Amino acid sequence: MVIPALIERKRDGGALEPGEWRALVDAYVAGAVPDYQMSALLMAVYFRGLEPAELEALTDAMLESGDRLPLDALTGPIVDKHSTGGVGDKTSLLLAPMVAACGVYVPMMSGRGLGHTGGTLDKLEAIPGFRTSLTLREAAAQVERVGCALIGQTPEIAPADKRIYALRDVTATVESIPLIAASIMSKKLAEGLGALVLDVKTGSGAFMTRLEDSLTLAETMIALGEARGCRTVALLTAMDRPLGRACGNAIEVEESIEGLRGNGPPDLMELTLALGAEMLLAAGAAADLAAARQALQRVIASGEALARFAAIVEAQGGNPAIVDDPSILPQAPVQQVWRAPASGVVSRIEPRRIGRAIIGLGGGRQAVTDEIDPAVGFMITARPGDRVERGEPLATIYARTDASAERAATALLDAVLIGDSADVLPLMSHRLTASGVEVR
Amino acid sequence: MVIPALIERKRDGGALEPGEWRALVDAYVAGAVPDYQMSALLMAVYFRGLEPAELEALTDAMLESGDRLPLDALTGPIVDKHSTGGVGDKTSLLLAPMVAACGVYVPMMSGRGLGHTGGTLDKLEAIPGFRTSLTLREAAAQVERVGCALIGQTPEIAPADKRIYALRDVTATVESIPLIAASIMSKKLAEGLGALVLDVKTGSGAFMTRLEDSLTLAETMIALGEARGCRTVALLTAMDRPLGRACGNAIEVEESIEGLRGNGPPDLMELTLALGAEMLLAAGAAADLAAARQALQRVIASGEALARFAAIVEAQGGNPAIVDDPSILPQAPVQQVWRAPASGVVSRIEPRRIGRAIIGLGGGRQAVTDEIDPAVGFMITARPGDRVERGEPLATIYARTDASAERAATALLDAVLIGDSADVLPLMSHRLTASGVEVR
Repeated sequence: MVIPALIERKRDGGALEPGEWRALVDAYVAGAVPDYQMSALLMAVYFRGLEPAELEALTDAMLESGDRLPLDALTGPIVDKHSTGGVGDKTSLLLAPMVAACGVYVPMMSGRGLGHTGGTLDKLEAIPGFRTSLTLREAAAQVERVGCALIGQTPEIAPADKRIYALRDVTATVESIPLIAASIMSKKLAEGLGALVLDVKTGSGAFMTRLEDSLTLAETMIALGEARGCRTVALLTAMDRPLGRACGNAIEVEESIEGLRGNGPPDLMELTLALGAEMLLAAGAAADLAAARQALQRVIASGEALARFAAIVEAQGGNPAIVDDPSILPQAPVQQVWRAPASGVVSRIEPRRIGRAIIGLGGGRQAVTDEIDPAVGFMITARPGDRVERGEPLATIYARTDASAERAATALLDAVLIGDSADVLPLMSHRLTASGVEVR
Repeated sequence: MVIPALIERKRDGGALEPGEWRALVDAYVAGAVPDYQMSALLMAVYFRGLEPAELEALTDAMLESGDRLPLDALTGPIVDKHSTGGVGDKTSLLLAPMVAACGVYVPMMSGRGLGHTGGTLDKLEAIPGFRTSLTLREAAAQVERVGCALIGQTPEIAPADKRIYALRDVTATVESIPLIAASIMSKKLAEGLGALVLDVKTGSGAFMTRLEDSLTLAETMIALGEARGCRTVALLTAMDRPLGRACGNAIEVEESIEGLRGNGPPDLMELTLALGAEMLLAAGAAADLAAARQALQRVIASGEALARFAAIVEAQGGNPAIVDDPSILPQAPVQQVWRAPASGVVSRIEPRRIGRAIIGLGGGRQAVTDEIDPAVGFMITARPGDRVERGEPLATIYARTDASAERAATALLDAVLIGDSADVLPLMSHRLTASGVEVR
């Protein structure tokens, strides 16, 4: 295998053989292919893309560079959900216990905040004592016992993806649809899923801001999943404004608990029920979406979903009393109301700016080694389209200090815009399956 | 300076500021920018190109990463010639002594064989004792004393280019016109030249096989040279067949000596005189090309050119007796005549296949650490367009063993094609200067 010849072929628009991708990934993980050749190849892939056979081979090679979650002992259906990342998106915290309470296993492997977006692991770690770094064996045992686990990518899962992702992050090769798809799917397929539901975000606050890119990414991941026997469905959802009201780690946990009681913000409840219904349907645990939705509403109304969340928290070392007493969660010493700077219509609430302002408050990372302050963030009660009067409260800032609260208030002036009208994306615009695209 | 942001900007078709290129090259040489980021950036440059201001800044940064040849003491004109590489091209060996004998200083810095092409340094080192690795100070002193020196790139000349070139070589980023231009010109400008003549090869055996790429490369280098006060002229010349008859290190030295006596093959003499005339004219040492050509023919006829070559050989530790007794050069133990396999017209003599066959004989490198056998190669007496009879001698194979001669004979069957007619490029098709392109 002559690496420069492989790079040259991809650079010139050709394809690598499946066996070449396998050998390349193996050699890279073994240290026999240096980073500087892999990064040049990744940049060539950025420009030239991957043919379907190449994408499958790369995904398989990354998947098989590590172990799988040992869930062979389970007899029921296994499903997971993956979101491509946004601001205020806490659906994972609701979906894992809701779907598990409906009798479907959910081995949910999540990530940390990336760029301006929040991460499920960071939110969960706002719960005192909560451990997200279970071993594969611990995670599998918990899924069997509690019905679900909320964990991070372990070192045994797709180590090739982990190394390649770290390299892409520092060589401007993240924004490649086939590389994103291969990275996500290699990890998800390692969970041994029977079904996977993808929440592919679109709009200004998504990593893919253009609708056609979001559609392509969804289609690419569906093809990869289905080819490997994993029923894969995607919803294209709006990330041109935050999801729900809470944006920040501890306050998102609190909003999730409210949601599990059935009292979450309408958009959060709507998206959670839609994704959850897809999960149950794809897993074969419901006859149709309407029946799936009813099942989910039942476990909310009965308290089973909330009880299952408490069981997960307890199983992973956290304090389950937060379910009844959210004041146990980290509290921000400074809470400051933010008021409309003018009268008019809320025209935009820009997720990127909100996400960056959370980082500014200490609630996200500038560098991977940064510690996170779980208590800070924004509770944004205004929604795009709301008619507001100057001085009316639109949000609450949760901060560590008065000075950081002031900076956050200034940041909100750029993030929350008042104008004449709002033009927002539909919450859920497309549903994609192996059979095609459905516009909603 | 956030390196991933610079890579991303280039990837997306933007430009880096001149100061950013400077800082990037400096940081790379200092080890502060890792190879994997530089290779990703180089691949982005491969796809996106460089704007003129970027190209100048990169060239300057590479030039200024090292020292210049200390030729300030010279009062006369200083000129060099650079070829983009081919097979059988020994013009440097003739031009350096010829132009020096006409009173113009020639600090000629050359390279080694690259890919299928031959290298001037490898040819010179076929001369017993010849040293090509002079220090900058030794080279400058020799140029002052003898009028010229034939040397390799010293470690002090453009070290940034040396490191970047080595990285490009293993990351499939060699074939980028702006990167090729910056690499060549950073080294050439470090020689402190008043004028530079470029021999830009085109055709199947050149690195740039397409005419428009060769033209763009020539124009790019002319713009870079002229902007730095170096009068730069280019000839576009044919590399769809070898130049001259001898292809191999020692036998090319012998053919060069014949050429310095005025007895070289017609195409070699024609190109040498044309390039030499451009060198004298660009250096201001002749009123026009015709006068320059006459001056060159005079130093050949008078024996001054050959005497100057002997003086260079002696100054650089070689045995000057080779000029009168070429049998001192390494001799191949096996010399085998190769005959026309069919009757017809010689339709092609493919330089790439000839060059690879020389490597097969041991006369070139597969890996940079390979030792070269200077004695081996091909003396190809046939020319494209010649009508030949089956069994007629077309070439002589110079080999170390009978077995390697047999393999070379087989290789010639693929390299020298007999057909009905020949379709070759004109030896010199275009002349390019700062004022424009002249088609010949």
